[in-house]
Amino acid sequence: MNQERLERLLSRVRVGALTVAEAVDQLRSLPYEDLGFASLDHHRSIRQGFPEVIFCEGKTPTQIHAIAKALRKQHRPLLATRATPQIARLIKRLDRRAVFHRDARIVAIRDVRQRLIGRVLVITAGTSDIPVAEEVKVTAEVMGSRVEHLYDVGVAGIHRLLGRRDRLAHANVIVVVAGMDGVLPSVVGGLVSCPVIAVPTSRGYGASFGGLAALLTMLNSCAAGVGVMNIDNGFGGGCLAHRINQMKAGSGTVR
Amino acid sequence: MNQERLERLLSRVRVGALTVAEAVDQLRSLPYEDLGFASLDHHRSIRQGFPEVIFCEGKTPTQIHAIAKALRKQHRPLLATRATPQIARLIKRLDRRAVFHRDARIVAIRDVRQRLIGRVLVITAGTSDIPVAEEVKVTAEVMGSRVEHLYDVGVAGIHRLLGRRDRLAHANVIVVVAGMDGVLPSVVGGLVSCPVIAVPTSRGYGASFGGLAALLTMLNSCAAGVGVMNIDNGFGGGCLAHRINQMKAGSGTVR
Amino acid sequence: MNQERLERLLSRVRVGALTVAEAVDQLRSLPYEDLGFASLDHHRSIRQGFPEVIFCEGKTPTQIHAIAKALRKQHRPLLATRATPQIARLIKRLDRRAVFHRDARIVAIRDVRQRLIGRVLVITAGTSDIPVAEEVKVTAEVMGSRVEHLYDVGVAGIHRLLGRRDRLAHANVIVVVAGMDGVLPSVVGGLVSCPVIAVPTSRGYGASFGGLAALLTMLNSCAAGVGVMNIDNGFGGGCLAHRINQMKAGSGTVR
Amino acid sequence: MNQERLERLLSRVRVGALTVAEAVDQLRSLPYEDLGFASLDHHRSIRQGFPEVIFCEGKTPTQIHAIAKALRKQHRPLLATRATPQIARLIKRLDRRAVFHRDARIVAIRDVRQRLIGRVLVITAGTSDIPVAEEVKVTAEVMGSRVEHLYDVGVAGIHRLLGRRDRLAHANVIVVVAGMDGVLPSVVGGLVSCPVIAVPTSRGYGASFGGLAALLTMLNSCAAGVGVMNIDNGFGGGCLAHRINQMKAGSGTVR
Amino acid sequence: MNQERLERLLSRVRVGALTVAEAVDQLRSLPYEDLGFASLDHHRSIRQGFPEVIFCEGKTPTQIHAIAKALRKQHRPLLATRATPQIARLIKRLDRRAVFHRDARIVAIRDVRQRLIGRVLVITAGTSDIPVAEEVKVTAEVMGSRVEHLYDVGVAGIHRLLGRRDRLAHANVIVVVAGMDGVLPSVVGGLVSCPVIAVPTSRGYGASFGGLAALLTMLNSCAAGVGVMNIDNGFGGGCLAHRINQMKAGSGTVR
Amino acid sequence: MNQERLERLLSRVRVGALTVAEAVDQLRSLPYEDLGFASLDHHRSIRQGFPEVIFCEGKTPTQIHAIAKALRKQHRPLLATRATPQIARLIKRLDRRAVFHRDARIVAIRDVRQRLIGRVLVITAGTSDIPVAEEVKVTAEVMGSRVEHLYDVGVAGIHRLLGRRDRLAHANVIVVVAGMDGVLPSVVGGLVSCPVIAVPTSRGYGASFGGLAALLTMLNSCAAGVGVMNIDNGFGGGCLAHRINQMKAGSGTVR
Amino acid sequence: MNQERLERLLSRVRVGALTVAEAVDQLRSLPYEDLGFASLDHHRSIRQGFPEVIFCEGKTPTQIHAIAKALRKQHRPLLATRATPQIARLIKRLDRRAVFHRDARIVAIRDVRQRLIGRVLVITAGTSDIPVAEEVKVTAEVMGSRVEHLYDVGVAGIHRLLGRRDRLAHANVIVVVAGMDGVLPSVVGGLVSCPVIAVPTSRGYGASFGGLAALLTMLNSCAAGVGVMNIDNGFGGGCLAHRINQMKAGSGTVR
Amino acid sequence: MNQERLERLLSRVRVGALTVAEAVDQLRSLPYEDLGFASLDHHRSIRQGFPEVIFCEGKTPTQIHAIAKALRKQHRPLLATRATPQIARLIKRLDRRAVFHRDARIVAIRDVRQRLIGRVLVITAGTSDIPVAEEVKVTAEVMGSRVEHLYDVGVAGIHRLLGRRDRLAHANVIVVVAGMDGVLPSVVGGLVSCPVIAVPTSRGYGASFGGLAALLTMLNSCAAGVGVMNIDNGFGGGCLAHRINQMKAGSGTVR
Repeated sequence: MNQERLERLLSRVRVGALTVAEAVDQLRSLPYEDLGFASLDHHRSIRQGFPEVIFCEGKTPTQIHAIAKALRKQHRPLLATRATPQIARLIKRLDRRAVFHRDARIVAIRDVRQRLIGRVLVITAGTSDIPVAEEVKVTAEVMGSRVEHLYDVGVAGIHRLLGRRDRLAHANVIVVVAGMDGVLPSVVGGLVSCPVIAVPTSRGYGASFGGLAALLTMLNSCAAGVGVMNIDNGFGGGCLAHRINQMKAGSGTVR
Repeated sequence: MNQERLERLLSRVRVGALTVAEAVDQLRSLPYEDLGFASLDHHRSIRQGFPEVIFCEGKTPTQIHAIAKALRKQHRPLLATRATPQIARLIKRLDRRAVFHRDARIVAIRDVRQRLIGRVLVITAGTSDIPVAEEVKVTAEVMGSRVEHLYDVGVAGIHRLLGRRDRLAHANVIVVVAGMDGVLPSVVGGLVSCPVIAVPTSRGYGASFGGLAALLTMLNSCAAGVGVMNIDNGFGGGCLAHRINQMKAGSGTVR
Repeated sequence: MNQERLERLLSRVRVGALTVAEAVDQLRSLPYEDLGFASLDHHRSIRQGFPEVIFCEGKTPTQIHAIAKALRKQHRPLLATRATPQIARLIKRLDRRAVFHRDARIVAIRDVRQRLIGRVLVITAGTSDIPVAEEVKVTAEVMGSRVEHLYDVGVAGIHRLLGRRDRLAHANVIVVVAGMDGVLPSVVGGLVSCPVIAVPTSRGYGASFGGLAALLTMLNSCAAGVGVMNIDNGFGGGCLAHRINQMKAGSGTVR
Repeated sequence: MNQERLERLLSRVRVGALTVAEAVDQLRSLPYEDLGFASLDHHRSIRQGFPEVIFCEGKTPTQIHAIAKALRKQHRPLLATRATPQIARLIKRLDRRAVFHRDARIVAIRDVRQRLIGRVLVITAGTSDIPVAEEVKVTAEVMGSRVEHLYDVGVAGIHRLLGRRDRLAHANVIVVVAGMDGVLPSVVGGLVSCPVIAVPTSRGYGASFGGLAALLTMLNSCAAGVGVMNIDNGFGGGCLAHRINQMKAGSGTVR
Repeated sequence: MNQERLERLLSRVRVGALTVAEAVDQLRSLPYEDLGFASLDHHRSIRQGFPEVIFCEGKTPTQIHAIAKALRKQHRPLLATRATPQIARLIKRLDRRAVFHRDARIVAIRDVRQRLIGRVLVITAGTSDIPVAEEVKVTAEVMGSRVEHLYDVGVAGIHRLLGRRDRLAHANVIVVVAGMDGVLPSVVGGLVSCPVIAVPTSRGYGASFGGLAALLTMLNSCAAGVGVMNIDNGFGGGCLAHRINQMKAGSGTVR
Repeated sequence: MNQERLERLLSRVRVGALTVAEAVDQLRSLPYEDLGFASLDHHRSIRQGFPEVIFCEGKTPTQIHAIAKALRKQHRPLLATRATPQIARLIKRLDRRAVFHRDARIVAIRDVRQRLIGRVLVITAGTSDIPVAEEVKVTAEVMGSRVEHLYDVGVAGIHRLLGRRDRLAHANVIVVVAGMDGVLPSVVGGLVSCPVIAVPTSRGYGASFGGLAALLTMLNSCAAGVGVMNIDNGFGGGCLAHRINQMKAGSGTVR
Repeated sequence: MNQERLERLLSRVRVGALTVAEAVDQLRSLPYEDLGFASLDHHRSIRQGFPEVIFCEGKTPTQIHAIAKALRKQHRPLLATRATPQIARLIKRLDRRAVFHRDARIVAIRDVRQRLIGRVLVITAGTSDIPVAEEVKVTAEVMGSRVEHLYDVGVAGIHRLLGRRDRLAHANVIVVVAGMDGVLPSVVGGLVSCPVIAVPTSRGYGASFGGLAALLTMLNSCAAGVGVMNIDNGFGGGCLAHRINQMKAGSGTVR
Repeated sequence: MNQERLERLLSRVRVGALTVAEAVDQLRSLPYEDLGFASLDHHRSIRQGFPEVIFCEGKTPTQIHAIAKALRKQHRPLLATRATPQIARLIKRLDRRAVFHRDARIVAIRDVRQRLIGRVLVITAGTSDIPVAEEVKVTAEVMGSRVEHLYDVGVAGIHRLLGRRDRLAHANVIVVVAGMDGVLPSVVGGLVSCPVIAVPTSRGYGASFGGLAALLTMLNSCAAGVGVMNIDNGFGGGCLAHRINQMKAGSGTVR
């Protein structure tokens, strides 16, 4: 599309419909919108298949409200991560279809006509890893993936995992969420042939150093083919899982 | 027992009491219970001599309550660590015998008919290490070990320790709990011949880095035969101490 | 297939062709081979689509030779990573088709009848990142992926990357290899919609801390959907890239 | 000036207007003022072109008030960084011209007759980096530089930056403020020929370690000629930018 | 024994066989031998059940030779760890019964009349962890434990481990040696009820940081009752395993 | 004294005034007092010239009260560090002479008849380092040293320090307290010949990492003869300064 | 100039001298040259005032030779940093004017007709910091700056620095190179008003952690306006110093 | 003396024996000597009681030779630390009295007429800590202190230390040198009342991180009054010990 647009522009220069100076200007200004404190990237949904996402941490409610408003004018789906109940209320006032996923800390507006495709499986080692897993799940779902989950199947009782090997076998991509020792992705990675995404969580204490121990375990995983996300980065895990999942699902609209 | 059960199952296949498909199903589903957010491992007390323990941090009161309820249906003893007074009240409502050990932050239901065996000695370097030491103590006691303690005998006044060498000599296993410089396990390890477990605490300031300094001291201990636990991991220390202690005590029920 | 085999075994129990004791034994001993110092996992190619890989670092030439010999009896392709010229000579003596990829430090025996599928793109920020990129490339190729590369396109001269956006657009998955500041995956991740795998390298000096700086940059990438590998882990990157690539390519043999 | 003053003093010794003992005393006591808890350096504006700045963190309101009072007696401009609204109120009571820049957390009294010179450009990667960028901006402005800004132009949508290359080209010095992966200075540094100052921010989560990831990225930047400040040190960035800017601007009053 | 000796000494004071001054002197000088550069602790075998061990790293061959010579005069067994072939030759010249365990880097003189007791099981995740495992094994054997091993059973092919669960079940204590991600102790710890000792190795690369990743994984293990040793500390692991093993074995000579 | 007491004891054994068993008992039990949660070391003032100090952090008010009460029965001076106003009130109720030094967070009872000796100089780099410096000062004073101070003389205005070189020259020992870059001890260490003690403070932000940067600067100081204390350890600095100061001062009561 | 070229291209489209397709192609391919392993950025000297620099570490001699050859065809000056004598010989064979600066480890070809401008001052704390300082010096000189130096003036003898304050006062920009405690930039930064660039070196031992201590000191410097480079990054320091220096010097050719 | 010299200078100005310009020049140039690569600080022996010391690491033999030569012209004693045998030979050629202390890696020329004073005690935990201890010892001796030692008395056999308490009691200052867990200073610090200097060594492995573990232990020591040096910094420890020792010894020549 970029190329298309460029060709169109150059053709207009050729036929004199556009002066050289105007063309220089247009070539420089790709479609973004300036809010003063934020430069919205309306071009992103064309480039990457999903509009810009609002990462709420570190932004004021006023800023988030303004960004959400500007985004709503242009795109169907909306995703605001690390949101508080207060932010959820603000966005719901903008658009009644907005849903607050409390565990995932996400406010989302899904395109309800969109059919969920493929199969992403989200696994957690423990109960306290669930909030991050929910961030994975909601993210991938809003982007268009079908997501299943399997919670609290850490290796302390490995039969819980081994007893559900059929569910591992049917996924296109598996996202393993684990804190403390972070060993679950290594075990899962040894059992399956699909891509595995490991998301360390900050759950733990002492020498877990806020998730660093789990992160290092995952980076050093003996199981081949495990890609690692930042600590507690459920959004990133969900986004990557969706991108991989839709390849399998054969969605023709990716690029 | 696992083997027994397997043999029984296969025998039933052999005699036609079980179809192949049923056998495959049963082989896959070992005994766990799915609460949606937690997969309880009821099999654990058979496999490891003690039922699953509830680590309360990072779980909601509702989740803890549901887990405790499910566990109570099956097993005698119960151990919930890192518990708050609120959680204690919730569990007490489930079972009146539950006791809240405030210093140890543990809610426990002990099997009162069980005789405490052997001798575990818990030592602290300072007064502020006592809460972690109490977590060690209550854990090992609920599991069935007799536990004694010796608090505030750090090396700044080494005669306090040396004057009680007879008490060191009578223990099956010694758990040394220390923060700040974490030197006590090295000194104790040089005086005794029984296994020594070192538990660093996060007590300290400045370059103690939340217990990291004590942890490193213990890992590098010149005294041979010292095993180290995670920072503030009193539960782990109590559990390992109990396992070692019961070997000496000759408890026939270990496996 | 696991299930198939299990059903066959149980059927044989049923018809009395196998005693219960024999069945228990067979159920316990899955197909691995014990070399004393190594337990070969011949089962892996069925479970994961590629036979066990030899990671040469830390193994003696004698051990590597024995493992390679045992693997050669069973499987077509062979992959030995972090190999030295000496190891290459040893393996070539076992099998003349073995090729030593010097830059990638890999000795490989490819199944030459296998058609390469899909399109993996490997990008490096600098010239000195090439050895790791070659490890990515050879790994993915031996596993069956078509791989292209684009080397030395770091952001210090960003037009080198932007001028090749069409090549980025045609890949199923992109592996970005970068040392020093490790910023390239963030920039690439902002330009494409396919999955991006980031491999930090240990190239750099001073506060790069052997690749830690690049690793942290990649984990914290603002671009969504970037999965990170361990430092210098070209094998892992190639393996994950192949798994993702073959999903798109629709290879029916994955599981 | 120091030399001037020394010559004057020695001349007075020569002509007997000053005894040797008096000269020794004066040589020892350069112009500072002792408040008991703070030694004010009234000499600094002569030595460095700007009076001593009050870093409010870690000082009591009483101490800050006393320092501000003493400084007000001597100098025109005043700069109090990391200020709270409470501190702002205290200083405003001392001098009505004081302005509280809430985002920048700075209380400042500018010399309104001073003409702003040159051009400093402050860029942020995201919206949440703005408070640090504002500290850069207000600092450089109070010191006498003209400052422009460009906010939220991170590389996730690199066209936002590339589309404004003319603004980059017109700056004497660029200050790039970024958290998370901290890649923006590398990209900017590859596009311009003027000095670039990189200020990492503590914005981020997980393995960003309070800005450490961004700091390391910047220190390892492949782009030549990037100087790095401490995490969140907007004041330092503004101060260095002003020093560089005024060189270009040819302000004769620097030394 | 200490008490005995003290009572004898005091009795001699009582009966006048020893002056007060002589008694003071003797009380101060416990039985050690001063070699100038080393203070041999001949008292240790009485206090801890095994004579002082020579840690060869950082000592000159001359020093090691002198220490070995002094120790040989007093005790039966001798253990020199981190030994080189050169040191092995030196000690063999002192005593022909000395054996050099090359993989374990240990020179040892065993008391051949001693019957090996109990059962220690040493497990490694990979082939390259074997040298550390051998240090565990030789140490525990020279001290008097029967030791079995199970090498290369990492979780990448978890059936290799699960297929040998009976061997895990028969051990008094299990030492798990693992580098890279260090996940094996967590899995083993979830399967058994005996004490588990985890020894991280420095095997790995990139973000394994010389074994730090494996160490942190083990310290944060979700499996209860796992004690951790320093990186590559096979001697410590063997020593602690022996102390625990002999408790079960009921050896009456421990204290 | 220890020796004296031992001789007396042995003499009593000799003359039969003490049985051997009684002597063994007394030799084992040196004078400490057991409060259950704390083992008071009443022997310390004889051994080290000052009674045991109460480090309040991590102790409950009840524990502190009990320790203070027990200490008061025996000794003149009392020192409780890291005290809160609440603790101060508790101790004042025990003994009206107790003084709460708010900046230093110390509750102290000085022996008013004691003459302060020698000269300790305490220097800070900034105003926000004063609380730690006051902890140094009050500690050394209560122990018996005369202490002077020089605050806010950091190197940003080095003439403030150089102008007071005579004060540096007259100290027996100098304690330099500094946060942020922690450079002051290096500069002071290059100017004087007396021992210099460096105390890093946690004052700073960003890459100061809670005082780690200052600590490392001080440990690596190019100036010879600088001993370093833990971060914010004003008590330790005051204690060491006093020990050195009293040597010079010739106080005969040290040992 | 970029704009100029773009306008020319568009004008040619307008007048039909260039087809749209050709224009698209040219717009995409900015002037770089592909050597297979390296993408030379010939455009850089126009964009940044100096051609691409060869960082030799991690490149093979063959690669360096090929890059140097390609660069020599286009540009006057050449700079190859971290070069070995072997590399120097290779480049000298390409161009006889190449000079090997052994201390700085740089091979350079200077444009001898270029007049050196302005004044950069390079200072070292110790003698062993000189190699890094020489890298600063040669870099800035080859780029066109006049450079003076002042070596071994660390704060251990601060009069060495203070006695040369006039030399500090005459510089446009000062680069301070220091290892160990890294305090010199703080002291220099407090004395001057020009921009100060701090370059930490890896010189030191123990807790200097390869220059990390010096780096942290510099980042936390209390002196305002100090920009920090990576450890041992003399090239970066020289490059930034030149950029600042030429602003003052008023060189019209910068952009 | 500084003051004296200043007074003399000013008096000469007063009487016209010196022009103002000459005085300004002299005031600026304190007595140092410029060797181009090193600025010798001949003034130091007056200021600090001992001439400048040559730290050989990172200096070329030629540089060391030139510095030694320049120093020899002025001062009696000479101290070159971290010296190699080659450097020793170079200096011996300059002055036949030079002695190479191989263990301490020091080349020294002592003033043989100087009487050694006081008593410094150097203790090591192990045999491999001796080289650092010897650096302490030789340094303090060359500076003028009497030094005794006690080697290999680590806490693994604490009676070796306790049995020599009288030797601890007679020292003016004790330097404790220890690697691995670094616990010895804490134990010694609890036994004595004199100042204790702790020197961590890099001896150890695994999580000792090159001495970091020992360093942290010492910084966090529970024993009051322990000052810590950098890892392996025997010179610093010896220098500080000498400064403290000579205070007690009452040497009148200190300042």
